[in-house]
This record gives sequence, structure tokens and C-alpha cells, in this order.
Amino acid sequence: MAKVVCLGEIMLRLSAEAGTRLNQTQQLEVFYGGGEANVAVSLANYGHAVQFVSKVSDNGFGQAAERHLRSYGVATDHLLKAVGRLGAYYVEQGTGQRATSVIYDRQASVFALMDELEWPLAELFAGADIFHISGITPALSEQWQNLTLELIKAAKKAGCKVSFDCNYRQNLWSQKAAGAFLNKILPLVDYCSAGKMDAIYLLGVPEVEADATYYYQKLQELFPTIQAFYSTNRIVHSTCINELQGTLWINGKCYTSKNHVIDPIIDRIGGGDAFTGGILHGLLKEKTPNEIIEFATAAAVLKHSVKGDCNQFSEKEVLKFIKSDNAKIER
Amino acid sequence: MAKVVCLGEIMLRLSAEAGTRLNQTQQLEVFYGGGEANVAVSLANYGHAVQFVSKVSDNGFGQAAERHLRSYGVATDHLLKAVGRLGAYYVEQGTGQRATSVIYDRQASVFALMDELEWPLAELFAGADIFHISGITPALSEQWQNLTLELIKAAKKAGCKVSFDCNYRQNLWSQKAAGAFLNKILPLVDYCSAGKMDAIYLLGVPEVEADATYYYQKLQELFPTIQAFYSTNRIVHSTCINELQGTLWINGKCYTSKNHVIDPIIDRIGGGDAFTGGILHGLLKEKTPNEIIEFATAAAVLKHSVKGDCNQFSEKEVLKFIKSDNAKIER
Amino acid sequence: MAKVVCLGEIMLRLSAEAGTRLNQTQQLEVFYGGGEANVAVSLANYGHAVQFVSKVSDNGFGQAAERHLRSYGVATDHLLKAVGRLGAYYVEQGTGQRATSVIYDRQASVFALMDELEWPLAELFAGADIFHISGITPALSEQWQNLTLELIKAAKKAGCKVSFDCNYRQNLWSQKAAGAFLNKILPLVDYCSAGKMDAIYLLGVPEVEADATYYYQKLQELFPTIQAFYSTNRIVHSTCINELQGTLWINGKCYTSKNHVIDPIIDRIGGGDAFTGGILHGLLKEKTPNEIIEFATAAAVLKHSVKGDCNQFSEKEVLKFIKSDNAKIER
Amino acid sequence: MAKVVCLGEIMLRLSAEAGTRLNQTQQLEVFYGGGEANVAVSLANYGHAVQFVSKVSDNGFGQAAERHLRSYGVATDHLLKAVGRLGAYYVEQGTGQRATSVIYDRQASVFALMDELEWPLAELFAGADIFHISGITPALSEQWQNLTLELIKAAKKAGCKVSFDCNYRQNLWSQKAAGAFLNKILPLVDYCSAGKMDAIYLLGVPEVEADATYYYQKLQELFPTIQAFYSTNRIVHSTCINELQGTLWINGKCYTSKNHVIDPIIDRIGGGDAFTGGILHGLLKEKTPNEIIEFATAAAVLKHSVKGDCNQFSEKEVLKFIKSDNAKIER
Amino acid sequence: MAKVVCLGEIMLRLSAEAGTRLNQTQQLEVFYGGGEANVAVSLANYGHAVQFVSKVSDNGFGQAAERHLRSYGVATDHLLKAVGRLGAYYVEQGTGQRATSVIYDRQASVFALMDELEWPLAELFAGADIFHISGITPALSEQWQNLTLELIKAAKKAGCKVSFDCNYRQNLWSQKAAGAFLNKILPLVDYCSAGKMDAIYLLGVPEVEADATYYYQKLQELFPTIQAFYSTNRIVHSTCINELQGTLWINGKCYTSKNHVIDPIIDRIGGGDAFTGGILHGLLKEKTPNEIIEFATAAAVLKHSVKGDCNQFSEKEVLKFIKSDNAKIER
Amino acid sequence: MAKVVCLGEIMLRLSAEAGTRLNQTQQLEVFYGGGEANVAVSLANYGHAVQFVSKVSDNGFGQAAERHLRSYGVATDHLLKAVGRLGAYYVEQGTGQRATSVIYDRQASVFALMDELEWPLAELFAGADIFHISGITPALSEQWQNLTLELIKAAKKAGCKVSFDCNYRQNLWSQKAAGAFLNKILPLVDYCSAGKMDAIYLLGVPEVEADATYYYQKLQELFPTIQAFYSTNRIVHSTCINELQGTLWINGKCYTSKNHVIDPIIDRIGGGDAFTGGILHGLLKEKTPNEIIEFATAAAVLKHSVKGDCNQFSEKEVLKFIKSDNAKIER
Repeated sequence: MAKVVCLGEIMLRLSAEAGTRLNQTQQLEVFYGGGEANVAVSLANYGHAVQFVSKVSDNGFGQAAERHLRSYGVATDHLLKAVGRLGAYYVEQGTGQRATSVIYDRQASVFALMDELEWPLAELFAGADIFHISGITPALSEQWQNLTLELIKAAKKAGCKVSFDCNYRQNLWSQKAAGAFLNKILPLVDYCSAGKMDAIYLLGVPEVEADATYYYQKLQELFPTIQAFYSTNRIVHSTCINELQGTLWINGKCYTSKNHVIDPIIDRIGGGDAFTGGILHGLLKEKTPNEIIEFATAAAVLKHSVKGDCNQFSEKEVLKFIKSDNAKIER
Repeated sequence: MAKVVCLGEIMLRLSAEAGTRLNQTQQLEVFYGGGEANVAVSLANYGHAVQFVSKVSDNGFGQAAERHLRSYGVATDHLLKAVGRLGAYYVEQGTGQRATSVIYDRQASVFALMDELEWPLAELFAGADIFHISGITPALSEQWQNLTLELIKAAKKAGCKVSFDCNYRQNLWSQKAAGAFLNKILPLVDYCSAGKMDAIYLLGVPEVEADATYYYQKLQELFPTIQAFYSTNRIVHSTCINELQGTLWINGKCYTSKNHVIDPIIDRIGGGDAFTGGILHGLLKEKTPNEIIEFATAAAVLKHSVKGDCNQFSEKEVLKFIKSDNAKIER
Repeated sequence: MAKVVCLGEIMLRLSAEAGTRLNQTQQLEVFYGGGEANVAVSLANYGHAVQFVSKVSDNGFGQAAERHLRSYGVATDHLLKAVGRLGAYYVEQGTGQRATSVIYDRQASVFALMDELEWPLAELFAGADIFHISGITPALSEQWQNLTLELIKAAKKAGCKVSFDCNYRQNLWSQKAAGAFLNKILPLVDYCSAGKMDAIYLLGVPEVEADATYYYQKLQELFPTIQAFYSTNRIVHSTCINELQGTLWINGKCYTSKNHVIDPIIDRIGGGDAFTGGILHGLLKEKTPNEIIEFATAAAVLKHSVKGDCNQFSEKEVLKFIKSDNAKIER
Repeated sequence: MAKVVCLGEIMLRLSAEAGTRLNQTQQLEVFYGGGEANVAVSLANYGHAVQFVSKVSDNGFGQAAERHLRSYGVATDHLLKAVGRLGAYYVEQGTGQRATSVIYDRQASVFALMDELEWPLAELFAGADIFHISGITPALSEQWQNLTLELIKAAKKAGCKVSFDCNYRQNLWSQKAAGAFLNKILPLVDYCSAGKMDAIYLLGVPEVEADATYYYQKLQELFPTIQAFYSTNRIVHSTCINELQGTLWINGKCYTSKNHVIDPIIDRIGGGDAFTGGILHGLLKEKTPNEIIEFATAAAVLKHSVKGDCNQFSEKEVLKFIKSDNAKIER
Repeated sequence: MAKVVCLGEIMLRLSAEAGTRLNQTQQLEVFYGGGEANVAVSLANYGHAVQFVSKVSDNGFGQAAERHLRSYGVATDHLLKAVGRLGAYYVEQGTGQRATSVIYDRQASVFALMDELEWPLAELFAGADIFHISGITPALSEQWQNLTLELIKAAKKAGCKVSFDCNYRQNLWSQKAAGAFLNKILPLVDYCSAGKMDAIYLLGVPEVEADATYYYQKLQELFPTIQAFYSTNRIVHSTCINELQGTLWINGKCYTSKNHVIDPIIDRIGGGDAFTGGILHGLLKEKTPNEIIEFATAAAVLKHSVKGDCNQFSEKEVLKFIKSDNAKIER
Repeated sequence: MAKVVCLGEIMLRLSAEAGTRLNQTQQLEVFYGGGEANVAVSLANYGHAVQFVSKVSDNGFGQAAERHLRSYGVATDHLLKAVGRLGAYYVEQGTGQRATSVIYDRQASVFALMDELEWPLAELFAGADIFHISGITPALSEQWQNLTLELIKAAKKAGCKVSFDCNYRQNLWSQKAAGAFLNKILPLVDYCSAGKMDAIYLLGVPEVEADATYYYQKLQELFPTIQAFYSTNRIVHSTCINELQGTLWINGKCYTSKNHVIDPIIDRIGGGDAFTGGILHGLLKEKTPNEIIEFATAAAVLKHSVKGDCNQFSEKEVLKFIKSDNAKIER
């Protein structure tokens, strides 16, 4: 059991039922999630001691976000509460060829408005094995770019590995701003979720006809201290039917998982976070690269079969899913 | 923005949840719809000034039908209310190879029992661009055949184009009666939703091995003043998986849309009305035939992704759907 | 049928089911409401031509707010849409002695952020009988105080009566700021919803042992051009059991309605707006003061029996409720 | 265990949730009920062999009505099925002082349209102890007046006691028509549910200041062969709070039950039928008059605590309710 | 219409909604089912006189199990009630490649604890055409092995055919124990649901590369008095997509149904029981082997389209499904 | 913040909606609770470090019980998981004069079957301030009587105060057995929830006409080392309306809280545990006796306003409730 620190924003998610549009619905289903929070839940499910560090509203929704995290065994010792709003997002579930659409309503949240690090950093990272953060956090404000860098430096100083998920969101910042920031922090990062698109559009790797291996080589050349790159390749047949395959670059070699057909998809939000959670778990447990990439991809696939942002499966369940050869009833 | 008048019956629709039979269900989901009402909603969504003309019960259900129409911006100045019942229909959603079944309970409704036109016709059609009505209305009673003819004549007299959707329903009248009636009114019609089956079984076009173009040519010969014919071709793989392609005959040429695979279908009722709404919108906006048929078919496909009888998408959303090449999450 | 203009913010309301706390709920029920919007709905129910003027988000929630208004027949010609957020509020329904609590999440909404009047004022007020606005709107920002004054002046100039509901909310502005603003606008107001608390704490009437008549006399002295004051007196036995009585001051006399016991209350939010709607309807129809106050109070009581912010009863239904002497099943 | 035959119409009942109006609801809850059917269910709950005789639609709703009856052990050997519609009614649950309202939609049902008795009468009544029918059935059509008389005569001929519930419904026939019919059949009736209102308005007993005993004496004088009269007295404080007390006239004496306060009422529809079921059970089991009236009233009270038209309590549960002195949790 | 006796355990089934795990759900959907009970319901749907014989808890759940059976017209004259618990099972619906999982909670139920046959056996089997029982019952306890044998002997003695469904459940007994028991009773069985796996692992037929015919021949050699063997072959593409084909061995020949693709599956639990119900119905009606196997397989396929354990389709509906060539809406 | 250890059984609770009987319901609402678990949740809500010690099933329901506890911040380090069943209970909510009824289904649970203490007792009680256990635990089996005594002795040895809630359940053991056991353990107890009924029927105090003070004096004489006795007095007007008043005996004096009318009650299960939680919190925080009893009673009253077994209110919310003089909306 490792000790992990995840820091980021956790939001209220409100979803309309499939087949009903947001402008028609009389009911919204309530979930809580966010990139780093979802990774935290995955790692807690796998038995690690995880702290989720954030700031939430001091009202029913902030309390519910905390209850959500605690229910999975994620520790919330450093979850601050303050007067203000919790960021929110709304999901209109697509179907067939109609895409799912997401409305963000996260501006002016208590987390986004932070302008200094209110947590005791030394205490936070003492004894921690991994600090995980994503590219959404620095995208929230210029100040959060500074704070993110400060956090990563503190983590490194404490001897903690840094895991970073690029997670580029075009409606939050420009490619140029994101690229500049990435160039600042990636030299400090140990494990990095990034793919071909990130390489080309954010980090300036020239586009060529080549597979993931090529781009990982180029990224490795740019950031030689990063120890692992990973990403998924998703083929979208329709909103309900996708194929998913995971790739892991480690020690100069590229490992690819089995390709999974997911039909139907219940809820794909958080699939990438489940994948990251699986990778970090594999690295922490020092599994083989093949084991790591199969585990992480299977975890991501399982996530698609449940409602809500976060992976709800234990290590035992993920391994059982990998071994099972079909979908027979268990009884 | 054009001015459109749609006239017909609007009904209470009660649906059981998929997987639950009508003879078992303890809950019914409530919708309101009808062929002409659904076209009215589509056209209002696209920004036209639409009047839906009908007669409903003077109770909660009639009020709800009016609220439904108004919520989409359809005007209800000529929606009469009277003591009596609102027609209803019940839907048992099929799945896989089991078909959806519909129970009609529309006899003796305040609309079906009408025996004279209670609306001020001159006022109704003044300045209107299109009057839309379907073959379901004359099928309700012999008297409604007379009233339908009277309405169409009044519309023509007011300088309004007449749109007619054949919409043959075998449980309401015989092919012979329908054919006789069609022969009376089609010479007055400008835009006509009709397909191969209508040509053969109602209008006496001999069946040959040929595609839609052949039948449209024959129909055009029979009714030379009709300016556009259109219909969809649906391949039913299962209740949940269909293919859909639209066809438009205009100015002696036949235009066919892209073929869409719809998997899964949430609710296909009203798909044809969404198609008609798209065609009329294209004609009113004087789009090209290719634009018209792609738009109308896309609108019909989108309808299959939402619950309830009517299309819920704006022109902008339909165009975006046409342009999008897959079903990625929008965020 | 009079012409009425209501202007204010309309919000998304999300409610948890009674017995379930916001920090526990997995479902939220969706409504739309706001003080002026609720009055608009009441008046449209009574047959008036009502414009609801506002600015909403250009997304599913803004569309839903518009659909809500239209479904009641409220016109939305001047409902602007813009990129941004719709204000929201969350309701945790109390029960017994536990009070209902409301969390506002309305900061930085597209309406609150407005800094100029984007509507064509002359067109807006042309031919209008009443312009209704409430004290919540100027409380949103200093700029909104200026805009409110500007609106009222434009309305007066157009020959339109001005209706103002004080509706003081302590978490939006101070008593002092509210009082100063009220002193500026009340000389321009014709009909005013205000009570003893407003008189004492906002307008500086010294508190004495006296009933509402006394305070209305004092207010009339302060603002001699106001033609009617009205308010309700609510005795709160518990969250579920209240007594409600309405009072109207007009032409120097005070009229009081029957006292209603409401047991149980389904949803009291919007009760005051239903009361205001009833008063304005009575004034527009030139009913007697006794008729007005009985009608308005009955409308407010009926509102407590339905979910959601707005009154859903027609004039006929309110009058029937007044006449009925008990609660027998109608069949 | 006695053998009982109940004959009448059974309908589909659709109810909106309390607090939601029929013109707003998106969900309707499904029940099945009718006066005689509800009595049949009560008697089957108490262990009697009950046939419910009727005619229903040959579709999912007719099947569901049959499943409803069978689930309580009511035999449906004589439940005919035919093409056509099942009568329906819709319930808008009131609350506080707002009354519950019911919309009937029963015209042209397969039962109402019957013009001859399609059941084998001799077989039907062979060995039966009681034949129960209500005044709603003859009110459906003139033909049903004849058929009702025919049924009662056949029952008497077979040696079966006749139970008749006046159940006057003003929207189905006039007081005069009902009175004339009652005068024809009451001489053939053994047990009669009738009260003061029936005596005065239907049967011409002059109104005087007197209690139920007086009117029962008068009715007994008019119809000396009737062996028992019974009715409930209901004080309606509000839709949710009623008082209920039962009265039984038998052998020239009047017996009154304990007065029950029912607070809150979940669903009062069918309360009278539960009372009738209790009376008939008591008569069949030859309980004492006091036992009968306490049992019947308790059964009626219990009915108010459950959703749906019919009593769901066994004899044992009703007796336990009578004995219990408060509402402590049983655990 | 034949007379059939089915005996076994009926259980409470609680299911979470697809996409929600048992460890997360706040709602469970309630069904009742069990192998023999499901067969009983199928046969009652087809018009046979069916007794379901069992023992249930004398509380709300036992009553509900009885109501469930009765609602389908299954007679419950021999359904005993006693203090104790009703067996239960819980279903977590899988999706895509994630399998559905079932948690049994049936130990110490009033049925499992039985140690003698409490029913009047002679009366039970008098005039019965078929006695149906499954291999789950003897697996409940050693005592139930004795009781099962006793029941089968009593049925044979009464001249009743014996139908036995092997239904091996590995978590209830070993292959060895099951095999030993089968060898004792199969010589007394007339109709047997068994497949290749049963032949190899329970009855010792050596595994060879061969189709079902081979194994049926071998089983026939072992148990020459069995008149019919049958089973389904299921290809599991995913939890939601299966192929299903039925096989019947009768009079030394093997008959195979059309292969059905089921996409999507609503609920596959009880599919095998629906198949058995169809086979027994065909045998009772003396249909041809081809008719029997097509009917039984179609019934099994239809079962997959509805929630709950039991087949809900009449003979007419199954035949209509066989004849229909696609899944068009019926209207 | 104190350290508290609570030990007992936690169960799955399934409830039907008010107005629907268990034998009719198609949905059950899921909760988790148990006497000691509910107290644990209360104390965690008030900020204490609470361990809930128990043994649950190693399946989805055991996981859910753990998630429930963790979501409130209760630590589950000593929550064992094993193959077997989780105890369950079912609630049929009464209404009006009809009582709520509870069906227990807890026999043979993994907790009830325990025959030795599987927890590391020294570690468990190290540094703990209070060990809380209730009379339900020893009632589960004779072995659990021994284990309970062993636990209490271990707690005392570790210097931990012992809190015991008599919680007599007649369907688990006899008054005689309970009394004998109580006499064994009460000399070891520090804080005891017991009332007049316990004094008379379990501990042999002769019944006299006297109030609680008298009985507490007698109990104190019998068990002089107990430092505090407490209980609630509940007046049951109906299932929905109760009065509740708390009493605390401490240092030879009796303190009584304000009397609360609770109307309506949402869910009274767990009210006693919320009271105990409040008492223990007051004792731990060394509040005055008056503060303690007002706080505990208010907490119990608040519990009645929310669904589920456990108190969901923080110390701040309980104190606010005590101070508030009515049930006004907070906004």
C-alpha cells in the first residue's frame, strides 16, 4: 500500500437521463467528480492510502463531495471548506450518432478563485510516494499555473514522484499557453499521461505518419527525465459503441493492451481517469509493463459500464475481468 | 421566418418503460403528439411562426397538450377546447426482435366528433405560406373527409401552399376509401409525402421492379401540379437498430440522402413527422434539393435519439449533426 | 385582457425530495422560477398578455427557462440569450420544526452581470398597462440599481403603471442600501408590495404596537402617490403547517382576507408571488377591494399545494376554491 | 367461506403524484378499480370465494385488470374480453383545502356499450350466497337499467341474497331517474348501502332535523324486505384530514362505530367500497351488529392508508388494527 | 388445457438498475421467481391449469410471491406459509463485457429447511398430466434429495408424466453428488432438460468432438425410458448480445430451431425456464417436433425482452413473434 | 475530539414507500443501519474519531455498509468481511393510525454466527474514551452474551468508559434472560440508556405510580457505579405525529428537555440512537446536564425529519435548531 496525494477540483455533476435533453428534463441525477478526484478514488479502491486535496463550498454540495470521497476510503484531511460555490457541470447523454454534450459551470468556484496554497505542503507530501495533478488545474487561472508549479516543486523536494495528466481542454486555455506551461513543468514530472495530439499541438513535435511509439520517442527526447508515458486510443463508432486500447511507453519500449469493444457504453466520463489510476497502481506495485497496460485498460473499460465519473472496481475485480473470456452470468 | 398552419388531432401518449409490458406496468410516461402537431413543433423549432389548429378536451389533458405546444413556441390561438375526451394512445416499447406495439384509444374524441369547421378560415389562412395536414385526419370519419377537402380549398383560395402527408393507417379506413379520397385532394396539393406503397396500394400505380424514382414519375404523371414528393426508406434490423435514408423528388429529379444507421433507437415514433418538418423547412428556406434531403433525414435521425413524439432540435443543431463526423463528447 | 411587462431574473431551481438532505441526494428535481417570472406566469394564467423580459444563458437551461414561460403562455420576445451561466438555487425541503433551507448560486449569472439595458424600452412599454419589477433586481449590483431606476422611468414615461415588490433579501444588500434605493424609486411606484418589516427596517417608520393599518398609513404619508399597498401575514406553526392572511391598503382603507390554515404545505416558495399576481389581476380587472384581497390570498394558498415556484391555477379555479366550503372529491 | 358474485365495471385509474397537476405531470401511476371490483377484492382478502363478473378490453389494460383481480385471489371465470376500450379515470390528488379532482373517461367502454347479458346467469348464481352490484352500473345507460333488473331477478331466483350500493353519481344520471330505478329494484334487495342524502334526494323521504336512525326507519318502512342498511358519516376537515364513522341499521336498531380521525389520508378513493366489503363479510360470518360495524369502519379507515382503490388488508390485520391502541412500530 | 403440477422454491429477487452496482444502489427493483415457478407461469400463460406447490414465509414477501403467481393465473392451493424467511437473490446487471452477477441469499429459508413433504400427495397428483421439478430442489439439502425422489415416485404412481430440468448449480452441490442423484431419478423421468455439459460432467458420457445429437443418443442409451431431451445453445457475445438456438431430441431424432440473435438483452434470467415452458406446452398440445422447438426457442427469446424472471407472453403472442419477419411498429 | 469505539451488527434495510405495502411494492429503498452503527455515525458527525467494529458479508452489501459508514467519516479499520450473509430488515411504513411494521431477516448473518472475538482487543480499546454497545448484541445468541461480557471487561481494563443501551427486543430473548444478563453487566457500565419499562420488566423494580425520577433512583441504588441514565418519553398520537421529551439522570438529579411535537414524522427509526449519540457527545464535551438533554433530544427530533436510520446533522446544525424559534425558510 502506497501513499498518494491527488490535488485538483471536484465538481457537482448533474446528468439528464439518456433520451431526455437538458432543456426538457424534470430530474437530474447527481454525481461528484473531477480528474484528480477520480484517480484518487481508483487508487483507494486498489488499497492505497490516498489524500484528496482541494477546496470545496461550505454547504451541502461541498459536504456531499466529501462524503463521496470518504465512501471510497479516500482521506479528506486536507479538503478545505469555504463560503462560495462548488464548480458544476451538466451532462446531456447522447445516443447513436448524437454525441453527449457537457456544459461547464465552474467559473468563480471556491477552488478556481484560490490565489495561494492554503495547505501545509511539507506535511502534505511527507512520506508520499506519488503526487498526481492534471492539466485542468493550471488551466483554471494564471495564478493556478504558478500554484501548480509551486506544488510540483514542493512534491519533488519531499522526494515524491510527480504524475501529470496533460488533459488539454480547449475551452479553458489556448494551445500556446498550455504548451508554454507544459514546457515549464514536464522536466519535473515522472509519469505523464500524454498522447499524439498533445505531442503535436502542445509540444511542437512535427506531425508525421507514424504510430504512438514515434511520438513517445520524440517526447522522451524532449523530456528525458520522464519515466513513463501512457495514453488510450479510442475509436468512436457511435456514442454507445467505442473501441479502446491502451499504450504505455516505459524504458524506451512501447506496450499495447488488448483492444476492447465496448458495446454499449453506460457512461464514458472518467474513462481516462480510470486508465490513469490503473497505470499508477501498476507502477506502484511494480507490475510488468504488460500487466500494467492490460490492467489499466481493463479498468478504463469497466468504468464505461457504470454511471458516474469514477471507477468502482477493486483490483480483484479488474483482474477477474481480464481473465474472464466472456460475459456469462455468475451464479 | 415563414407562416405555417398545421391542423390535426393531438393526443395524450402514455408509454411503459422498455422491458415492461403494458399489462404489468405501474407507471406510464406522459407525452403529447400527433402527426400535424409534431410537424408544427419541428417548424417552430426552426424559427417559423406556426399555428397549430385543433380541438382538445377542456380538462387537464387538453391544457397539457396546449402547454406542450406552447413550450416549443407553437401558437395555439385556434386550439379550441370543449367538454369531452382527448384522444389517447399507449405504447409498449419493444426491444430486439420484439416489435413496439401501439394501442389507439382515440374514438369519440372531441376532435374526431367534429362535424363542422369551427375556426375562422379566412383569418386562419391569411398570409400563411403553408397549410399542412395529413391523411390521418380524413380517416377519422366521413365527415372529416368533407372537412379536409373544405380546408384545403380554403387554404388554396387564400394563396397558401398545401402540404399533405398520406400517412395511411389501415385500422382507420380501407385502401379503397383512402385511394378515392386521395384522388380528390391530390390535385390541390403542392407538397406530398408519399412512397412506393402509397403509389401501388392507394393510387393504383402497377407494381414493377424499380426504385423510388419510377414511382415518383408515375405519381407526378397522375398529379402534375404537385411540386415535391418525399419519403424515407427504413431498413428494420431490429426494434433498436434501423437504417434510414430520405428521398426527395423535385423538378423531375430524385435526390437521396446519406444512409444513417441508428443504433440504438430511443423512440422512433414521430420520425416521419420530423422528416416532413425538415422537408418543409428546406422548401420554405429555398435550400437546394440536396441540402433539403440531408437536413430532413438528419432531423429524422435525431428524433430517434429522444423520447416523445416530436423533434427537439434547432436548425443549428441539425446542421451541426450533419457536419460532425463522429460522436465525440462535446466539452 | 391587459398588457403586462415583468422584468427580472429567472433561475434554475433544483430541489431534493422531502426527507433527503442536499448532501445525501442522488436526484434533484428541476424547476424554473424567480419573483417577477412567477408573477408573469400568474397573470398569463388569468388571461393577460404578459411579456417576461430578462437575459438567460444560451444553453439547455436558458432554453428550458424559456420553454417553462412559454408553456404558460408568457411571451418571451424580449428574453435575451447569451454565453454564460443561468443563476441557480437549491432547495432542501424541511419538515416539522426543521426549516426549509435555500442555497443561492446566482453570482456571475448573465443577468446579474448586465451593465446596460439591452432591450428596446420604447417598444417594450408601448401600450403596456403595468410594469412589474421587484427589489431583488436592484439588489444584484450597484449597476442594477441604476438600471432599475432607468426602467421605471421609461415605464412611467410610456404611461404604464409601475408595480414594485420590495422583497428584501438580507444576503444581497444591507437594510441601509435598500432603504436609500427605495426612497428613490417609491415616488415613481403605483402599486407596492410592502409590509410592517419593510416600513420599520427599510423606510424608517418607528415601530409601535399597532396593526398593519398603522404602517400603511405611515407609508402612504411618505409616498402619497402610491395607490395600493399589500402584503400577507404568515403564522408559521411548522414547516408544513402555516396560516396565511392577506391585507390590502387602498384609498385609505385596509382590507383583510379570510385567514387560511394550510396543512400540509407542499411547497411554499413563490407563495408571495402568487399573492402579488392575484392583487395585480384584481386591480387590472377593477374588482372591489374585498374581491381583490380574497382572490389574491386564495391564489397564494393554492400555490402552496403544488410543487414549483409558480401559481398554476386559472382565475376560474381560484374563484371555485374561494366558493368551495370543503375539500370533497370532485367526481 | 361464502360464495360471492360481484358485477360491474372495472377501470384503468391513472393518478398524478400529490403536488403535481394533471396538466403538468410527466408520469402517471397506474391502478385498476371500480366499486364492485373493490368490494370483490375485500371479500377475497377475507377468504371468500369471489367471482368478479365484467367485460374488459382485449388488450394490455384488460389483461392488467384481470391480473389485478387474480393477484388478490378474485376469480375471473366470467370476465369477458372484447375489442374496444377499457373505461378510465384520472386523479389529481388535492392537498390541504384543495380538493382531489377526478376526470372520468369511461364513455364507450366495452362494458358500458353492452346491450345484453352475455354471461350464463344460472351457472353464475348457482350456490352463490350474495350478489353485489352498485348504482353506478344502471347509471351507465338505459339498457344497463334493464340489465341490472334482469340480473337481480336472476340472482333472487337462484336463492342468492342481493346487496346493492346506491352510489349515486350526479354526472351519470338525474336524481329523478335514479329514484325511479331504485323504487323498482329495492324491493328485491336484501342489503343496502344508502344514507340520508339518498333517502331525501332519491327516495323522497322528507328532510327533517334528525339523525341517521330516523332516515333508516323511513327507508325500512318504504322497503320492508331490506334486512340491513349501512353508510358512513365523513367529516372533511381537509383533503388530508377526515373523520369517519360507520352506521348499520339491522333488525330495527341502529349501531354506530367508534369515530376515527384519519390524518393524513394517503388515498381515500375506495374507502366506501372497503366499508361495504367489511359489512358484507360481517353479515356472511354472522358477527354481531357491533362487531360488523366496527370491522367495516376499521377496514374503511385502513383503506385510506394505502394507494389504490382497493382494501389490501386481511381479516386478521383489520382485527389487529381494531385492538391496537396506538401506532407503535411493530418490531 | 392440461393439468400441471410444479414444485420448487420461489424467491424474492432484488435487482439494481443497469449501470449501478449493488454496493452503490439506493433502490432495488422487486421481482419473484424460481425455476419451477417460472415454468408454472409460462404454462398458465398458455392456458393450462397449473398448481405451484411450495412453502413460503408467512409475511409480506410470502404474500407477494403468492400474488405474483396468482396474477398469472397459477393456482396456489398448495402454497404453504410458515414463520421464517423467504429465500432471496440479488442481481447486479452487467453490461458490455462485464458479466451480470448474482448473490444468493437462500440459506435457511422455510422451503430449504423442510424435512418432510407437507402436502397431500395423492390429492396433488390426482388427474395431473405433468409433474415438473428441477435439479435445484434436491441440491438444497440431503433431505431434499430424499423428498424429491419421494415426490417423483408419487407422481409416477398417480400416472403423471415427470419432467425434470437438471439445472446444475455448482455452488449448491458437487458434480459427483449431483451425478449420483441423477442416476437414481432419471429412470423415472419422462421429459428431461439436459445438455452436453450435464452428459459429460454429471452422467459420465465421455467427451468427444460431436454435436448435441451424439450426446442425446448416449443419454438415451443410459436412460431409455426418457421420451424427450432438450436444451438451448447460447453464444455469449457480450452481456447484452447473445445468440440462442434450441435443440429437441425426440423419438431418436434431433430437431434444431432457427438461430436468434438477441440484441439487446433486457434480462436473461429465466430464459431457460421459458424454454422449458415452451417445450412442455408443445408436448402437451402434441405439436410436431419442429413446431415445439421453434415455439420453445421463440418463447425463450421473448423472455429476454422483459424484466423479471418469468415469461409474460401468451401462446398467441409467441406464435405471432415466430411469424413476424421484422420488428415493425404495430399500429 | 474524543475517541469512541462502537460495536454491533449493521444491517441492510429495505423500505417500501409510504402508502405501499411490502406485499405490493415493486421498489425498495436501500439504507444501512443498526443501533451501535447509528450512534457511531452521530458521534462522527459531531467530530469524534469513531471506530465501528463489526463483521459483514464479503459482497456488495457488506461493501455498501462500509461505504455508508465511511461516507460519514466513521473509521472501519476493524470491520471484518467474510463469506455469508448480511442481516437485513424490511420496513412497511405506516400512516395515520396504522403502525409501521418491521420484518427482521437477521438470522444466520455473519455477525450473529460469530463465536469468538476476532478483533485485536488491546489495540481496539487503546486510548479510547468510550466503548458503546447495546442490548441487541447479547440477544443474538448465548455465545454473544459471553462475547459481550468479554468485550466490556476488555474495555474497562483499557480504561475506557462503557456505554450500554438496554434496547430490549422481545422477539430476540425473554425478559428473564435479558434481566439476568443485565444484572451481570450493568455493574461494569458507566452510561446507561434505560427507562421505566426496563426497570420494571427486566430489573425487577416494583411498579408504582411515579415518574422517571423514582425509577432512576431505584436503578441507581441497584447499580451505584453507573454515572448517567437517560431515556426518551414518546407520546404516540399517530404514526405521523409524536411528542418527544428526553430525560437524563446524573449525579442524583433528573433533567428533562423541552417537549417537542413532531408533525409529520418522515422516519422515526433510529430516533433513539440519535438521542444516545447526543447524550454521549454531551458527556464527552462535558456540557451541563441541561445542555446535554436539550441537545440529545433535539438531535433525536431532527432524526425524525430525514429518511434512513442515522442522524445526519452536525453539532452546529443541532444547536441552530435548538435556537431557532420557528420553521422559516432560510434564504
